[in-house]
Amino acid sequence: MKLYTSHRAPNPRRVRWVMAEKGITDVELVEVDIMAGDHKTAEYRERVGVPHVPALELDDGTTISESVAICRYLEALYPEPNLFGVDAREQAIVEMWTRRNEFYLANPIMLNVRHTHPLMAALEGAQVAEVAAYNRLWAERFMQTLDDRLAEHEFIALDRFTIADIVAVIGLDFARLVKYRPPAELTHLARWLETCRARPAAAAGI
Amino acid sequence: MKLYTSHRAPNPRRVRWVMAEKGITDVELVEVDIMAGDHKTAEYRERVGVPHVPALELDDGTTISESVAICRYLEALYPEPNLFGVDAREQAIVEMWTRRNEFYLANPIMLNVRHTHPLMAALEGAQVAEVAAYNRLWAERFMQTLDDRLAEHEFIALDRFTIADIVAVIGLDFARLVKYRPPAELTHLARWLETCRARPAAAAGI
Ligand SMILES: N[C@@H](CCC(=O)N[C@@H](CS)C(=O)NCC(=O)O)C(=O)O
Ligand SMILES: N[C@@H](CCC(=O)N[C@@H](CS)C(=O)NCC(=O)O)C(=O)O
Repeated sequence: MKLYTSHRAPNPRRVRWVMAEKGITDVELVEVDIMAGDHKTAEYRERVGVPHVPALELDDGTTISESVAICRYLEALYPEPNLFGVDAREQAIVEMWTRRNEFYLANPIMLNVRHTHPLMAALEGAQVAEVAAYNRLWAERFMQTLDDRLAEHEFIALDRFTIADIVAVIGLDFARLVKYRPPAELTHLARWLETCRARPAAAAGI
Repeated sequence: MKLYTSHRAPNPRRVRWVMAEKGITDVELVEVDIMAGDHKTAEYRERVGVPHVPALELDDGTTISESVAICRYLEALYPEPNLFGVDAREQAIVEMWTRRNEFYLANPIMLNVRHTHPLMAALEGAQVAEVAAYNRLWAERFMQTLDDRLAEHEFIALDRFTIADIVAVIGLDFARLVKYRPPAELTHLARWLETCRARPAAAAGI
């Protein structure tokens, strides 16, 4: 299998982090330079269907995009350590938190960065200040929800580290590009962030 | 089990549609009036954790929000007919298209409607014209991608109807609220939309 990936980009980093947690080393990494537009060539679009990284090319030629779909596929092939829940109930809780973290934290942060960071103007076309502000508001509102959750739980979804934590940490790390830090009063969020960032696998894909 | 749901709202409709496809009748429906703010009460937030519908309360008291997480949980309990793929490869393809349909079609349409429809001002707070326009642009770009896909496939993800189709149809149906119709030249999209809307289960939750 081949993974189309870009260093520093947050969505590929989810897959790289999962691979590192699971010790997966037999996937070939193909670096795509999104700043140079490598993902917008006719050839890349033909292969992947959309101008995005990451994408996983299977041995039968099927290509899967969408970072979380790729991570779940890798979980099926390499079940240990479990990151998506072991039964239907755990899987539902993990997916619920993963999606909350995507919709209300990681995506808003991504849109905020894309609409404020000078280097992102090239990817985004027109940057819109109102879009940036609106998304920052949503992300901060949800950080409070996470802080409340983490006041009573070590990790976000289960009593162990899961894909939900990976998605949230990477979302918050991406905000560093625009020098954003979560509000200092969110101390449970800060404690959890430090624990997750200290995992060896956190360094993959940066 | 109990499903907290709201008639007409697009995210609960995903769950209702899945229940109808699978003939699930033993889930109690609890109608939540989001226009009256029933989902913002302390009691609802305490139970669900976020001010959103749908939410599924399991018999052990655990409550799952996020429509797609709920649908996947129902698939585990009621596997037939299959809507999420039967093996890891199919599941990855279905999840990829489901997520594309959410991120690049259903969510942008939802944000467009929320930032333009007069009745949505109450839910949204300040409506921002730039947010509406930006999201419409994204949705239309992706409709072209779907039309290309549907030129060669009867359904979006697999050669049969799946959750990916449900998410896309509901996204497009929601746009009717602001009298939006997909561009007429997207004839494959129109053919597929008609096929999906004709399914008996399409009427659930409207
Ligand atoms: N929902 C997709 C998002 C993929 C995505 O937006 N990737 C970014 C890099 S993190 C990208 O390809 N950007 C290129 C562009 O926007 O032109 C996923 O989770 O994989
Ligand atoms: N990502 C969530 C979205 C849930 C959502 O936004 N639901 C809407 C109804 S379709 C809602 O609860 N709106 C109430 C509000 O925004 O105040 C899901 O898929 O379930």
